[in-house]
Amino acid sequence: MDILVIGSVAFDSIETPFGRGDDVLGGSATYFSTSASFFTGVQLVAVVGEDFPEEHRQFLTSRGVDLTGLQTCPGQTFRWKGRYGYDLNEAHTLETHLNVFETFHPQLPESYRQAKYVFLANIDPELQLEVLQQVERPQLIACDTMNFWIDGKRDALIRTLGHVDILVINEAEVRQLADEPNLVKASRAVLSMGPKTLVVKRGEYGVLVFTEHSIFSAPAYPLEEVFDPTGAGDTFAGGFMGYLAATNNLSDETIRKATVFGSVMASFTVEDFSLDRLRKLSWEDVEERFRRFQALTAFEGL
Amino acid sequence: MDILVIGSVAFDSIETPFGRGDDVLGGSATYFSTSASFFTGVQLVAVVGEDFPEEHRQFLTSRGVDLTGLQTCPGQTFRWKGRYGYDLNEAHTLETHLNVFETFHPQLPESYRQAKYVFLANIDPELQLEVLQQVERPQLIACDTMNFWIDGKRDALIRTLGHVDILVINEAEVRQLADEPNLVKASRAVLSMGPKTLVVKRGEYGVLVFTEHSIFSAPAYPLEEVFDPTGAGDTFAGGFMGYLAATNNLSDETIRKATVFGSVMASFTVEDFSLDRLRKLSWEDVEERFRRFQALTAFEGL
Repeated sequence: MDILVIGSVAFDSIETPFGRGDDVLGGSATYFSTSASFFTGVQLVAVVGEDFPEEHRQFLTSRGVDLTGLQTCPGQTFRWKGRYGYDLNEAHTLETHLNVFETFHPQLPESYRQAKYVFLANIDPELQLEVLQQVERPQLIACDTMNFWIDGKRDALIRTLGHVDILVINEAEVRQLADEPNLVKASRAVLSMGPKTLVVKRGEYGVLVFTEHSIFSAPAYPLEEVFDPTGAGDTFAGGFMGYLAATNNLSDETIRKATVFGSVMASFTVEDFSLDRLRKLSWEDVEERFRRFQALTAFEGL
Repeated sequence: MDILVIGSVAFDSIETPFGRGDDVLGGSATYFSTSASFFTGVQLVAVVGEDFPEEHRQFLTSRGVDLTGLQTCPGQTFRWKGRYGYDLNEAHTLETHLNVFETFHPQLPESYRQAKYVFLANIDPELQLEVLQQVERPQLIACDTMNFWIDGKRDALIRTLGHVDILVINEAEVRQLADEPNLVKASRAVLSMGPKTLVVKRGEYGVLVFTEHSIFSAPAYPLEEVFDPTGAGDTFAGGFMGYLAATNNLSDETIRKATVFGSVMASFTVEDFSLDRLRKLSWEDVEERFRRFQALTAFEGL
């Protein structure tokens, strides 16, 4: 099954203790699609400005990403500028220029409307709802969000969550959304808002997956070189959704394996700036690191 | 095999968002011994004042803890007062009164000197060295330490580490000891100081175990009720060392299983104040939670 994703395609300018990149390819939909493309086809919905170069389109197309839904509008592409300190868990936003994103409304091409797997990356929940109104009978809807929308567009977000099967957000956002400091209690509260599965991203500490009857914990891969955490969350979501769509199976077992594939993909992204590590990645690399996750977590039972 | 432990026996006064306890039983050696006693016998070395009540001795004795090495000195028992906010990962020390600990020098009873398993809880590394001079041919030495000693008694600590097989410390302390922000690089550096195994405690995020050729990741158990994190690290160490000593096996497989048993024990301690949860704990509870750790982390391989 292909996946429909809506999110941002952007230019990022990033400073970390290990180097910097200016106007490099970024954006939630970009990281998501590239990661998911290792597992399945992707239909992308986003907007760029007239400054968006052909080479980036060619890269995404070469990964099997359908760009029919990528609108080009007069003006500049969305730009984000951020800095990381040695605590690579937290990005400090220096500048955000929405540019063409400011007036964006998603228009799904006819060929996208039958999408069975849908991922609503972190954008205005009202735009997420506009997408849902245009897809006919999706089988699985997953979404991401952030503190900005939890705070500023809570009602629209709650409406979106009513349609969502899987919510993929950060630990602090779970607590904020539920207004509850205990993560387990907060997760139960979020599950009562609609999603049947909640994936809690904890940066370098990995991921917790809550369903009504089960909790699954996957670590992040301990890396000697973390250059740039930008896009790790969206890359995780791409691998996670990519595996679910490829297997077209939503059992608890498959969701667990998808979580590990998501963690594998994220562990590569942070090893280099922008999408540079994913550009060089082979399927053998992915399988090899999956096996390392097995070795990392294995212990004998009672 | 029995375990020899040296550390503190203390009265703690604790405030958390969920309640408070005044002058409750605490101390690293107390938590360690009680936890280890679910697996094996323990020989305790520590000091208390004349105010230490008989009921606490009776409790430890009832758990199979040998108190021959518990000195009673004129004066008051060590007291610690701390507060936790909603972020239960971090204790804010309000008061520390060393009292009888100030002039303490460990004197091992003759019956302790053959100890094969030794745990040096978080105390002055010079006292840790004094203990090592009094044990004859230990098979396994593990130790804990803290930022205060890494900063203030670095040379003595480095000497201690030269004798230590397993070091059990917090994530921030690994970075501080190695002066390196990347945890994997920092852990490699710490392993080069002597220990063959480094157990990195990450609070609610679990534990990473580094050896020369392997990394093992164990989550903390996600709990709906965390009342008091005091003693979680020492309780972990007690379960970890207790299982190693009980099996008298130091294979990688056994160390992994010991790590999970340590995590199981710690997950109980934080559910109530002081040692109250451990007082009521049965071996069936321990096994049942071990199985929950298996369910929490299991996923299908490739």
